[in-house]
Order: sequence, then C-alpha cells, then structure tokens
Amino acid sequence: MAQVKLVNYDEASDEVRAVFDDIMQTRNTDYINNIWRALASNPPMLERFWGQMKEIMVKPSRLDPLTKELIYLAVSINNNCDYCINSHSFAARKHGLDDEMLAELAEIVAIANAGNRLTIALQVEPDERFKPGRPAKPWAVKKKPAARKKSKK
Amino acid sequence: MAQVKLVNYDEASDEVRAVFDDIMQTRNTDYINNIWRALASNPPMLERFWGQMKEIMVKPSRLDPLTKELIYLAVSINNNCDYCINSHSFAARKHGLDDEMLAELAEIVAIANAGNRLTIALQVEPDERFKPGRPAKPWAVKKKPAARKKSKK
Amino acid sequence: MAQVKLVNYDEASDEVRAVFDDIMQTRNTDYINNIWRALASNPPMLERFWGQMKEIMVKPSRLDPLTKELIYLAVSINNNCDYCINSHSFAARKHGLDDEMLAELAEIVAIANAGNRLTIALQVEPDERFKPGRPAKPWAVKKKPAARKKSKK
Amino acid sequence: MAQVKLVNYDEASDEVRAVFDDIMQTRNTDYINNIWRALASNPPMLERFWGQMKEIMVKPSRLDPLTKELIYLAVSINNNCDYCINSHSFAARKHGLDDEMLAELAEIVAIANAGNRLTIALQVEPDERFKPGRPAKPWAVKKKPAARKKSKK
Amino acid sequence: MAQVKLVNYDEASDEVRAVFDDIMQTRNTDYINNIWRALASNPPMLERFWGQMKEIMVKPSRLDPLTKELIYLAVSINNNCDYCINSHSFAARKHGLDDEMLAELAEIVAIANAGNRLTIALQVEPDERFKPGRPAKPWAVKKKPAARKKSKK
Amino acid sequence: MAQVKLVNYDEASDEVRAVFDDIMQTRNTDYINNIWRALASNPPMLERFWGQMKEIMVKPSRLDPLTKELIYLAVSINNNCDYCINSHSFAARKHGLDDEMLAELAEIVAIANAGNRLTIALQVEPDERFKPGRPAKPWAVKKKPAARKKSKK
Repeated sequence: MAQVKLVNYDEASDEVRAVFDDIMQTRNTDYINNIWRALASNPPMLERFWGQMKEIMVKPSRLDPLTKELIYLAVSINNNCDYCINSHSFAARKHGLDDEMLAELAEIVAIANAGNRLTIALQVEPDERFKPGRPAKPWAVKKKPAARKKSKK
Repeated sequence: MAQVKLVNYDEASDEVRAVFDDIMQTRNTDYINNIWRALASNPPMLERFWGQMKEIMVKPSRLDPLTKELIYLAVSINNNCDYCINSHSFAARKHGLDDEMLAELAEIVAIANAGNRLTIALQVEPDERFKPGRPAKPWAVKKKPAARKKSKK
Repeated sequence: MAQVKLVNYDEASDEVRAVFDDIMQTRNTDYINNIWRALASNPPMLERFWGQMKEIMVKPSRLDPLTKELIYLAVSINNNCDYCINSHSFAARKHGLDDEMLAELAEIVAIANAGNRLTIALQVEPDERFKPGRPAKPWAVKKKPAARKKSKK
Repeated sequence: MAQVKLVNYDEASDEVRAVFDDIMQTRNTDYINNIWRALASNPPMLERFWGQMKEIMVKPSRLDPLTKELIYLAVSINNNCDYCINSHSFAARKHGLDDEMLAELAEIVAIANAGNRLTIALQVEPDERFKPGRPAKPWAVKKKPAARKKSKK
Repeated sequence: MAQVKLVNYDEASDEVRAVFDDIMQTRNTDYINNIWRALASNPPMLERFWGQMKEIMVKPSRLDPLTKELIYLAVSINNNCDYCINSHSFAARKHGLDDEMLAELAEIVAIANAGNRLTIALQVEPDERFKPGRPAKPWAVKKKPAARKKSKK
Repeated sequence: MAQVKLVNYDEASDEVRAVFDDIMQTRNTDYINNIWRALASNPPMLERFWGQMKEIMVKPSRLDPLTKELIYLAVSINNNCDYCINSHSFAARKHGLDDEMLAELAEIVAIANAGNRLTIALQVEPDERFKPGRPAKPWAVKKKPAARKKSKK
C-alpha cells in the first residue's frame, strides 16, 4: 500500500492540476497513472520528475520513442520494479511493442546479465583497443572570475 | 587480473579454434576480445555463451542490431560492468552509436533508475488498467505420457 | 578512460560556461570535478543534471546538508560506483564527515543489506500494522477538459 | 499478472510439447512450472533457456546438484526475484535442503552482502598476493584465415 | 508466504524468549515484527542479527537515530525490499519522519541512482584531489607469534 | 585508494592485535588481508565483522567450508565487488576450488541472473505448489511482562 496519499484531480492544488493537465494533454489521455498521483503528494517532486520525463522521454530526439521505452523497460526489469515493468510495458505496447519483441527484449536483458556476470567472475580486463583515446587534460582554472561576475549584472 | 588464463589462437584446441574462427568470420575481424579468450579456458563455457550470443544478438530478428546493442549496453551500465560497458560501447559505435546518442542512452538509464526508486520508495501499486488480462489456467496434466515416450523411439 | 571528452573552461561554449560558473559560485570553489566536465560533452545533459542536483541537494530543505550527503553516499556504496563514492566522501567530509562517522555509515549500509537479504530469503510478509492506512480511491476523471484547454489561451 | 499467455499442454505446438515432455521426463514429474509455460509463449525462447538449464544445472558435473541449487538460490535472493526464490527453494528441498541449511544459506548471503558493502565503502584495494599471476599476452592474429575459410567448404 | 514458521511467544524456547523480551524492552513495545519471528525459526540466526542491530542501530553513537533509520531506509529502497521499506518507514516515522522528509529521501535516492548511472555510463575517472592520501604500507609480519600464543595461556 | 588508514600490527592497539592474532591463528597464517587492516581503523567495526565471519563462515556447520565459500563468492560476483571476488576466489582455492569449478560457478551465477530477469520481465506468478503451507498466526501478546522483568533480577 502506498506510503503517501494518491491525489485526485478534484482535490488537487492549482500547481498539481497544471501538471496533471500537461500529462494528459501530452499523452492524449484523460487518465493519470498512480505514480503521478503519489508524486503529487509533494508538488515540487511531481514537477521535477514530470519535467525530466518530458525532456528526456517525450521530446523528439535522436532515439525514437519505442527505442526509448525499450531502454526504460530494460532498466526496470533489471531493477525488478514491478510497477515500472507494468506501466512501461503498457506504454511500450502503445508505441508498437508486441509479445514477440517483448520476448526479444527479455532475452537480451537476460543474456546481458549472464555476460556481465561471466566477465565479472573471471575478472577480465578491457582490451586496449576499447579505449576511446580521450585522455583528460587537468582542469584549467579560469582566469578572471571577478570579471565574470560583473558581466552577469 | 583475470582469474583464468587468456587463450591464444596458436595454443587453442580444435574446438576452441572453431569458435574463434566463427566469431571472427561472423564479425568480420581478425581480433578476438579478451572475454572470449577467458571463456576459452573452459571450452564448453565458450561454446555455450557464444552460441547464445549468436542466436540472440547476431541472428536477424524484430529488433535491429543497434537497438539490441543499446539494450545490452543499458543493462551493462546498470550492472556496473566496466569491461562490458567498454566492449559494448565499442560494438555499438560500429553499429552507428555516436556521442549524442550515448548521452541520450545514459540519461534514459539514469531517469529510469530515478523513476524506479521513486516508485519503490512510495510503494505505489500498479493501476488496474496495466493488467494484461491473461489469467493463467492451472496446468492441465497431459493424458498419455506412456504413449509419448514410445513415440520417441 | 572516459567515453566522452572532458570539457575545459577555455574551450567551453557559453551555455556550458554558465553552468560551470554557477557550480563554482554555488560551491565556492574554482575547481570543476571530472563528472561535470564529462556531462558538458552534451550541454543539455549537463544543464539537466546540475539543475536537479541544485534543487535537491543544494537548496535548503528539511534534511540538513550532511544528512543528504550521507544518503547519497549510502546509495553510491550500494551501487558500487567508485567515482561517486570518492567524490561524495570528499563532499561529505567538507560537511563534517569524519572517519568515525564514515565507519558508522559503512556498518549501517552493511547491516541494512544483511537485513534485506535475510528478509528476502525467508520471504517474510509485511505486518498488518505497517500499512499506512491510505487506500487509493480510483482516479476521478475531471469534468471539463475542453474548458481547461480554453483557459490556457 | 504475467505479461504473456501461459501455454497449456493441450494447446501447445509440437516443438513446445517436445520441450515440455523433456522437462517432465528429466525431472520425473507430470507438472510444468509457470515459468516454462510463460517462456513457451515464444518457443525459441523456451528452447534456449531450457537447453541452457539442462546443460548447466542438470548435466552431472563437478559440483553436486544441491550445491548448484544453493548457488542459484543465493543469486535469486540477491536479485530479489520472488518467483525464483520460491521455485528454487522448492527444487533445493527436493535435493535435501532443510530449514537449518536454508537459514545457513540466508546468513551467508547476508554476511557476504555486508562484507561486500564494507569493502566497497572503505575502497579497499586487493592485496598483491591475490593476483592469480596470469598476465595476458596480446592476441596473436592467426596466420592463414584464407586457408581456414577454404577448409570449411 | 514465509519459507519458515513464524514463532509465537508461547511456543518459543527460552533463548528465543530472551531475545523477544530484549527486543520488546529495548523498543518499549509488546509487539514483535514478523521478521524477528521468522528469524526465530533458527535461534542463533535470531541472536546474531538482533545482536548486530542492537549494536549498530540502537546503541547511542555519532549519528542520531533518525539519520540511521534514513540510511537504512535508503538502502532498503535501493535493494527493493518491500518488507524492509514498510518496516523501516514505520520505524523512521516513530523517530520523526513525516511525508515531506520521506519525499526528500526518495528524491535523494533517485538522484543518487541517476548520478551513479551517468557517471558509470560515461566511465568518468576520479579526480586526483579525491584521493585520501593514505597509501597502504605492506603488511608487517609480527615478530614473535610463539610468544603471543604463550601469553594467551 | 582506501578511505581509511590500513592498520599495521606494530601500530595496533591491544584490542586490534587481539583480533589480528585470532584471525591469524584461526586461518593458520601470519598475513592479514587489507580488508581487516582497513576495518581496524575502527576497532568495534573490526570486532563485529570478524565475530560474524567466524560464527557464520568458520564455525563447523551443516554446509561444508567450500560450499560456504562458493556461496559467498557467488554473491560477491553478483554485487561486482572486485576486492571480494579476488579475496574469496583466493580463499576458495585453498578449500579446493579449481579453474573447472570456478567456470561452473560462473555459469550458474550467469544462468541464475538470466533466469531471474526472464521471470521478472514476463511477470510470472509463483505456482500454488511452491507455497510452504505455513500461514502465520498473528502475534500473541505475552501475558505477564511485569513478571518477566522481575525474573531477570
């Protein structure tokens, strides 16, 4: 049972309603998932997480929406978050995931875990060729912080 | 330092050479990564893991090769396997990953972890609508195991 | 070796410099840690993570700064992130952490892990009395979405 | 609730029935656990995982069957997989596990987690004497790939 | 359902009753949580874990009781231990945790996970300045073990 | 680099020397691993962890010493603790572990991780038959706490 009260629309503050409205409009739905209603128990927490989700998961970018959902779902499986697996399987299916692709995803997550543990167990060291060849130069202290502060005014 | 000896081609048994050859041919390279040389310390372990990788990661399927590598990499980041992150970033770059996409992947893995922990901390229960509507019928014992055994002969 | 180039101040774009300046001013230092220089390889990623850190870890709130750092450090130990353990031990020491408190923190993280595994191994079910007594009412669809959309114009 | 349909024997395809038959014969039972019925929703996934399980967990090897089950169970506890803890406790009891040994296993998993976190928290570096003394020689490119390819025809 | 029998006071052995009594007296309650009743199925396991908890979590020390509970709770969230999250949220509320602080804790755990994964994904190396400057001298074998053994008699 | 100073025998306090002596005598060696020297930076931490290790890992019990080390090692691999993998592989080899058994262990840890993730991804529910049939009776408040307290005097 949730550790906090799930907020309903009719009892929500204006700032919470604004986020709920934005979620519903962005996702073209009139339903708000439990996680958002739980986060709404602390409005700044709701605003921060929704703000990040909208920036990273919703805004068009190099990776397509289904690929993003697959990566989110893979992590949720790896972390064993039941709620997240259910909500993001549901979301991924809206973006085209079907049972065959879900099975593929499950097997990739499984073999990656297997491969990770084999590598860790045998304590294998990275090959020289993997190194990106980007040695870090030490941090160069900038010269005129006083000037910088002035320029802000 | 590796817990086992890394096998070189010229000292490898025939069965190990067969796998090394298959890896090089499949990947169109004449280099074998350290992980395969470490697995080769126990030939059946090498055969099994390469066999699974070829089936799941190499064989054409519904998900494209870059998406598969992104999922494998996401899991490796989540499990904090340095070797795996380096080798699969390297592999993913061959399939088209660039710095911008890597940053996107990193942020999705990060926000998925953040979302997973928020959900777990607040102990949010899955919404009714997520349920796939596939109640399991109890296992039906099959009728004629004797007949089945016969048909195998 | 880092997967991306670590950005230096003199080669940084204006938007990256603005974040670097804000970090240095907020933390009263003229040094920027490697993690920020790596995130700067993708300016929006830098802005997003610093923005969140400033909101959650820096802005005065109910929990005092040392307690926040202890919680961040506990998670970093649990996730085995070497960089994060080193950088946040360093930060926590600035807020008052000493060797004795670090040993206490380490032992609490250790016994929490031990307790978690014992509980999971024995599959113990939560006591009735733990339940927060906050049953979730189903989501109430709000009445006038059309009106809401209008009010935004 | 399962994300996929649990397959029953009477509705299974021939390839799925072959695996179900093999599981029942290998384990001397007429019952198929839910996990196999879920994997059967994608027959190659079922075949691959059962094939690996049979090779690694069932085939006689250096470690005895109970020890194998204890290791599998320890990992399942560590990963917090409820289904897996229940199914492999059940399996291990068939191989001789009793409540006293389960308590021992639970305490070893617990103290290993405690020890791991203490070591990680204090950032202790491995002793020189632990090093297996097996420095890796660089990969030797094999001489005649052309010849190899021919010999395959 | 628990893997072991939950022990009740009236059926407990004297050694288990002694621990139950000590728990109730230490915590000023007449209720024993399920985890202790499950651990009591193996009395030495109960004694060991309670002994550790009393030493580390109950005995007055540098960190105050609420901070200790917050760290324990952060780890339990990170490990996704439902029982532990519920029991330690319950305990922390007795020490002053309220919904606002719980939201803060949840967000710190979330951002620490996000930060950990970003750092791991980008494979950032620790800054020189983090190093505690405590190089380990090699272990000095003590001179007179024979004498030591004698002095024990 | 370690977060705390590694204690040497000749600079150790009497209570630390007593533990060092006990470790060396119990393990029949004159060498102390780095982890113990690091824990010695806080003597009660050293005493507590060594006390637990001696009770759980050293004292003869139902599981034999090699099996215990295999379980400890499996967890350390799963948690990706480099120091712990190296120190407990070293310890397990003293109890009979060889390269072939290490490969078996690695593959069991790997397939358990694979199986755990497949099960979690598909959200499979435990079979009825796994339930241990041990429903918990509610906690019975003991009758005479006053009498109990008296009897302690």
